[in-house]
Amino acid sequence: MPETSAGFFDRTVRSMRLAWRRAGGRAALRDTLAPDLDAGLERVRAQIDACLEGRGGEVSARARAAELGEAYLVLSSDGRRRFLQLLAADYGIDVDAVRAAGTAFAGAADDAARRAAQRRLRELLQPPRVRLLSQFNGLYEGIKFLVDLRAELIGFAATDTSLEPLDAELRELLASWFDIGFLQLTRITWNTPAALLEKLIAYEAVHAVRSWDDLKNRLSQDRRCYAFFHPSMPEEPLIFVQVALVNGLADNVQTLLDEAAPATDPDGADTAIFYSISNCQRGLAGVAFGNFLIKRVAHDLARDLPGLATFATLSPVPGLCDWLAQLDADELNRRIDDAPAERLRRVAEVPDVADAVARLLARPDWHADAALARVLEPVLMQLCAHYLTTARRGRQAHDRVAHFHLSNGARIERLNWLADTSMRGLEQSAGIMVNYRYKLNDVEKNHEAYTGEGKVNASAAVRRLV
Amino acid sequence: MPETSAGFFDRTVRSMRLAWRRAGGRAALRDTLAPDLDAGLERVRAQIDACLEGRGGEVSARARAAELGEAYLVLSSDGRRRFLQLLAADYGIDVDAVRAAGTAFAGAADDAARRAAQRRLRELLQPPRVRLLSQFNGLYEGIKFLVDLRAELIGFAATDTSLEPLDAELRELLASWFDIGFLQLTRITWNTPAALLEKLIAYEAVHAVRSWDDLKNRLSQDRRCYAFFHPSMPEEPLIFVQVALVNGLADNVQTLLDEAAPATDPDGADTAIFYSISNCQRGLAGVAFGNFLIKRVAHDLARDLPGLATFATLSPVPGLCDWLAQLDADELNRRIDDAPAERLRRVAEVPDVADAVARLLARPDWHADAALARVLEPVLMQLCAHYLTTARRGRQAHDRVAHFHLSNGARIERLNWLADTSMRGLEQSAGIMVNYRYKLNDVEKNHEAYTGEGKVNASAAVRRLV
Amino acid sequence: MPETSAGFFDRTVRSMRLAWRRAGGRAALRDTLAPDLDAGLERVRAQIDACLEGRGGEVSARARAAELGEAYLVLSSDGRRRFLQLLAADYGIDVDAVRAAGTAFAGAADDAARRAAQRRLRELLQPPRVRLLSQFNGLYEGIKFLVDLRAELIGFAATDTSLEPLDAELRELLASWFDIGFLQLTRITWNTPAALLEKLIAYEAVHAVRSWDDLKNRLSQDRRCYAFFHPSMPEEPLIFVQVALVNGLADNVQTLLDEAAPATDPDGADTAIFYSISNCQRGLAGVAFGNFLIKRVAHDLARDLPGLATFATLSPVPGLCDWLAQLDADELNRRIDDAPAERLRRVAEVPDVADAVARLLARPDWHADAALARVLEPVLMQLCAHYLTTARRGRQAHDRVAHFHLSNGARIERLNWLADTSMRGLEQSAGIMVNYRYKLNDVEKNHEAYTGEGKVNASAAVRRLV
Amino acid sequence: MPETSAGFFDRTVRSMRLAWRRAGGRAALRDTLAPDLDAGLERVRAQIDACLEGRGGEVSARARAAELGEAYLVLSSDGRRRFLQLLAADYGIDVDAVRAAGTAFAGAADDAARRAAQRRLRELLQPPRVRLLSQFNGLYEGIKFLVDLRAELIGFAATDTSLEPLDAELRELLASWFDIGFLQLTRITWNTPAALLEKLIAYEAVHAVRSWDDLKNRLSQDRRCYAFFHPSMPEEPLIFVQVALVNGLADNVQTLLDEAAPATDPDGADTAIFYSISNCQRGLAGVAFGNFLIKRVAHDLARDLPGLATFATLSPVPGLCDWLAQLDADELNRRIDDAPAERLRRVAEVPDVADAVARLLARPDWHADAALARVLEPVLMQLCAHYLTTARRGRQAHDRVAHFHLSNGARIERLNWLADTSMRGLEQSAGIMVNYRYKLNDVEKNHEAYTGEGKVNASAAVRRLV
Repeated sequence: MPETSAGFFDRTVRSMRLAWRRAGGRAALRDTLAPDLDAGLERVRAQIDACLEGRGGEVSARARAAELGEAYLVLSSDGRRRFLQLLAADYGIDVDAVRAAGTAFAGAADDAARRAAQRRLRELLQPPRVRLLSQFNGLYEGIKFLVDLRAELIGFAATDTSLEPLDAELRELLASWFDIGFLQLTRITWNTPAALLEKLIAYEAVHAVRSWDDLKNRLSQDRRCYAFFHPSMPEEPLIFVQVALVNGLADNVQTLLDEAAPATDPDGADTAIFYSISNCQRGLAGVAFGNFLIKRVAHDLARDLPGLATFATLSPVPGLCDWLAQLDADELNRRIDDAPAERLRRVAEVPDVADAVARLLARPDWHADAALARVLEPVLMQLCAHYLTTARRGRQAHDRVAHFHLSNGARIERLNWLADTSMRGLEQSAGIMVNYRYKLNDVEKNHEAYTGEGKVNASAAVRRLV
Repeated sequence: MPETSAGFFDRTVRSMRLAWRRAGGRAALRDTLAPDLDAGLERVRAQIDACLEGRGGEVSARARAAELGEAYLVLSSDGRRRFLQLLAADYGIDVDAVRAAGTAFAGAADDAARRAAQRRLRELLQPPRVRLLSQFNGLYEGIKFLVDLRAELIGFAATDTSLEPLDAELRELLASWFDIGFLQLTRITWNTPAALLEKLIAYEAVHAVRSWDDLKNRLSQDRRCYAFFHPSMPEEPLIFVQVALVNGLADNVQTLLDEAAPATDPDGADTAIFYSISNCQRGLAGVAFGNFLIKRVAHDLARDLPGLATFATLSPVPGLCDWLAQLDADELNRRIDDAPAERLRRVAEVPDVADAVARLLARPDWHADAALARVLEPVLMQLCAHYLTTARRGRQAHDRVAHFHLSNGARIERLNWLADTSMRGLEQSAGIMVNYRYKLNDVEKNHEAYTGEGKVNASAAVRRLV
Repeated sequence: MPETSAGFFDRTVRSMRLAWRRAGGRAALRDTLAPDLDAGLERVRAQIDACLEGRGGEVSARARAAELGEAYLVLSSDGRRRFLQLLAADYGIDVDAVRAAGTAFAGAADDAARRAAQRRLRELLQPPRVRLLSQFNGLYEGIKFLVDLRAELIGFAATDTSLEPLDAELRELLASWFDIGFLQLTRITWNTPAALLEKLIAYEAVHAVRSWDDLKNRLSQDRRCYAFFHPSMPEEPLIFVQVALVNGLADNVQTLLDEAAPATDPDGADTAIFYSISNCQRGLAGVAFGNFLIKRVAHDLARDLPGLATFATLSPVPGLCDWLAQLDADELNRRIDDAPAERLRRVAEVPDVADAVARLLARPDWHADAALARVLEPVLMQLCAHYLTTARRGRQAHDRVAHFHLSNGARIERLNWLADTSMRGLEQSAGIMVNYRYKLNDVEKNHEAYTGEGKVNASAAVRRLV
Repeated sequence: MPETSAGFFDRTVRSMRLAWRRAGGRAALRDTLAPDLDAGLERVRAQIDACLEGRGGEVSARARAAELGEAYLVLSSDGRRRFLQLLAADYGIDVDAVRAAGTAFAGAADDAARRAAQRRLRELLQPPRVRLLSQFNGLYEGIKFLVDLRAELIGFAATDTSLEPLDAELRELLASWFDIGFLQLTRITWNTPAALLEKLIAYEAVHAVRSWDDLKNRLSQDRRCYAFFHPSMPEEPLIFVQVALVNGLADNVQTLLDEAAPATDPDGADTAIFYSISNCQRGLAGVAFGNFLIKRVAHDLARDLPGLATFATLSPVPGLCDWLAQLDADELNRRIDDAPAERLRRVAEVPDVADAVARLLARPDWHADAALARVLEPVLMQLCAHYLTTARRGRQAHDRVAHFHLSNGARIERLNWLADTSMRGLEQSAGIMVNYRYKLNDVEKNHEAYTGEGKVNASAAVRRLV
């Protein structure tokens, strides 16, 4: 198609910015919201009211909201907090009106009356502040603005519970706009614009990207990287996943990321290893994409590379060491075999197994001491298998990564010893990594069993460890 | 960006289609919903329930919804109606639960309790059928599917009021997804794909496009055409507007559309005439784009062609002749001057003015008889001015085109005699067309005056006619 | 890639145009070349000389050439002819210098001397006018300019042999720039810009496109259309081919183009019929693309649609009727069997077969008279088979379409009776069409046999007719 | 446009590769050309001959050439040299035939005969090897192949003069295909694909890019980078230029490249400094783009940023130190004033000025010693001014950078002391850099004066130094 213009009001807004600047608008709002000027809040309130009343027609209301949004951007963090608190306090639902509508609904004489009351209730339960925030979509790059605004809101709400309803409403609004049906799956390659690749480097949350060379290696011919995008935020990935095409289940992430290792022919690979998945937008917390992304990518890979027979992850066990630390000796003893426990005590030269584990893991570079690692291996592998299959946080698996993959319908396929010897890998996961396997025919059944009965699906090998 | 895939589940769905086809799925649903099989509805119900319970996880639920959507597509019109009636009857809100939540809300002891009750109320007021329809977004080209489904639903609801709540809910869902912030303005030119131009020919609702040559002429250098698109329906315009770049207010649409007239230099034009604006998607009835489109296009034109000083329409008066037909003689007499009324009676050879108007307009090709037209002109122009400025349908202007532009903040600038001598122009508007003028500085004020006090803004020339 | 600008000097040239216009440059050239101003040619000569001397550096020389090119565009046809004649007369090679260089070459004492003489000879044989024309590539859309200039030159050269060397040189220059390695194959569909489709309608040379509906039908799912483009002329097809995907060899072009016939599933087709191939740029006459286009398209179709087993044409025999008209009775008698000849004479009621054929073909709508057609069929089919396999124009097949396909390595597969009953089909080909078949394994061998020994490859069925 | 395929034979060639590999084709050629197998050259010769004779038609000939090209790619460097020597020795022109044609030309009886002889001469002077190389354009990415082949050829020709004619012919062929009219100017930004940015890092020849951060800084809002591309090599820049938008003439390149310096508003800049221009393709040596690139970029910048009033470079003087080293004392003395010379001798503690300069420049980090630098400055600035304005290599300026800009029509505007204190800057240019200024109105005149009379245009300030 010929000329397309990205967002709706882009240029309108640009020109308005100037007018606003000339009129000292931003400065005015900034002053208004400065700590000492509670009285001045009335002016912001007037602006908000003008947006909500739609004075001058819907186009003008949008433009005015955009103006308010622009002003928000120049506020200090404190000013923004006060603005959001104003919304939270004064632009929620009309409680009395909702009560009255509830009564009308309860006492409706006929279908028509009930339908009218229902419509009225729904309208009343949509607070004005949500309508206001929706209108910010008229801002240049308005969607990104709202996502970023929510990221800040989450921060403020952590210490101010009065902001929670506003946060819930905004999350719901964003969840509707970021419906999975609107997302675009994009393959990321070394031909992707550098400005975007730079963001992947920043957003990578599992195995930090050390350099552009490291990144290039992760995009070589036997690697894949996919991200979800929203059409209104074409330069901002929402979530991305990194995949290695290998033979057999990968058992070590340092090997996988070794820049010196030669790239292999992807057509010869039989296994796709999902070794990293990172959410990019804090403001979309609570809007889930990961499950869709994994399955969509698995689907596309299966289609493009018919040699692929296995889809699995190579994942950390981030909760393991914390969980170990709070186990008491009795519990710990119950979970491991006697012989390895005995060896462990001897090497650590303490009578208590829990102490022994703690001491040995505290030794610097323990993983590089082959003899020591051999002593720790049977004990930690057993404990890890216990942890993954039995430890709970409410009804969910205690380990958040385990919970994510189990609720997606994956099963615990294999534990890998000394699979991540980075500092974080050792500190959190005692160097262990897990392969969660996605068998497309089993994911529904596994998901049901896990979410229904809390049943954790694990391979025979893992079950033998327990 | 490298490889992007249009809709989320496209290929997933394609492959599922085969499975479904093999399993006879569609046939099953078709049979299930055949007139005699009320009992069989249970099977559809089971399928809907499975989608709503999210069995097998959200990915599976989406896939299952897509399957149900696919099945819908092969149903007969009657089957679709029954399916929608099933949704309307059995998947609305839980009335008792809403009542209870209303009571809980009214009696909430503290803020926390009220917030919980409020959240519960909102959830309960979102009927399951809306969640189900949202999931259809997972269908290949799911947004277009839902828009088309609503087009059908509107048809069914015309004779079955039980479908109205479902229609209102779907309209609200679509209004959220088609928020103006998501739309893309695209210029349409002779370089636009033929498949899209063909749709413009089909959708043009004001002055029918007679041929590809006619279309090409409407896209020549002194013409502009713009459309709004949604990123999930890139091949389907939502609304489009046609503009002529001319000197002075255009006073005749046949002249404007004359293919033999040479194209002029757009840089020399001082006036942009919006001579046609057409909505394209029946399923988006009630979701308003026109006001935004006009102002956005005016904005872009003003930026690109600094010579443009005037933005106005050349519009029909579609309600005029119907309104004339129901005027009685007294009323009519009050509105026109004596001299022209007298001439009219003489020419028509009837004593009553209303009769005279009716008779003369009934003469075939009256507009081609210059003498006759001269007699009719002062009477009809006065009547038309009265009609536009005073006739009401509730609080709105009686003429729907007048209402649209007045509520956008335009003013009635000029009436044009013998401005549209097409059959439709004569039958509906007595050949008269109106220039509604958009002065960007006045639209807010005009809008306020019209929507607030019902005040119609008209130029001095038009007011003189009244 | 971000911002790209199409041709090199586009904007430079645009700005120069203004300067030139102000300076009255074009008018000057136009006057200079007006019929009476032979003396004034000196001014053009000066301009040409300035371009060739590269005064002010190469960038300036290009700009000056662009200016001269611009001026050319406003000349009358006669002015252009005189300009080209000036180039032909005065900007050819320096004959004396070539002579001298030839002598130097012949008498070169050693390798180095001979190489120097050779280099000098090559330079001298590249006439200044070719360097001048090359520089026109600096014009905005310069390549298209040169192609169009040659189209005119061909016209002038038809009556002025002094222009022939210039034409040959320009052909050679264009052949180098339009090397097949630079061309891009593009599939044309109903989603192609209308401005381009409009050109196909104009350029279609074999079976005229009657309407946009006809065109749309030729682009439906069981049809293919491909064109070659050059990167410097992205809006101008060079040549295009239309293909029908069918079952079995097509035997009638009206059936193929029937808009009422439903489109079939291309995956079910076993035969690709190339039913039309049209060159678009007269200025590229003598630069051959057709052979490459057919083979490249056949290659792509074979890859995309594995069900395709046969690649063939449905082609006219445009030289048949002319050839028939100049056959004498004896020759004609030798070529056909007695029985059908006898029937023919009886029906035509003339004693001579040649007369009989001529008379019957002259009857209006003879093809609609089934009895008559039955009498003509055996005679004309035999004659046509003789014509295609034996008639010669020099060493080539007499029929130009036959020559094209035979030299490409195709073989004559089948003749089809009453296969094109359009007026042109009847007048030129007596309604007969031919399937030329491309068997990829045989084309090399067939080509060799045809170009080497003049051997025409025909199927057994066709040979039986002879 | 819908589906386009990059190069002509891409897929054809791909499939051929397999055939060739199976047939051991490459191995055969490799063996054939191995050092000991002179006899085996006959087989290559046969292959070349088959290409040139066009056996099987032009399509087959192209395919065969592509095959030969593929084979070339797997040869060792020595094999390639021998292959090129074979072309050079045996596929040049037919000397006797050229002699005969020369005689025919000289003795032509009339115009027609002379034209025929001329055509024959031109054909004979186009050696078969050039036709063969042209056909390699049929190879997948054939243009890049030929460019790379020439890069190798240049290397071989440095030690084997028999390859020179082949090199000249290939250069001429590439010059025709890389005509400036075909090139596309592309702006490079941080949004450009990383794979392309990586190439810029590799190709930057003036001021090495130290890191991706350095590169990003060179692409920030007050910098510009433009490159020329050819449509057949879309991933390979031909030449690129880096520009800084500043206020006043830049006088120090380290300041310009300082990553810590904040980016400024480009709309406020009055000067565009071209601080680096790098050719990327060794195989295009002798095909000039730089002059066009500078002027085209200056043109675009002037259009986009109306605040720009000055266009100049910040350039090294790479020949300065070498030239200084070979000056004798007398000459040197003539060129500098007495007082600074005296100071210099005193500081260096040697009686001879030439010695003094040499000694002081040899001191490590002399530029960091402010007192020393002060002593050197007047002497070296004077010498540099002399060098640039008077030193010659033949008719050209001795310094190659000076020659490039002077022949483009620039003038020497200012010398800058301690402007490049990098190791290379000190070693070659004694830390001095030059601003060459491009005044668009003067470039033609300056070019003429320089190329005609050898006149070097310098500002008054520079002339005063002399």
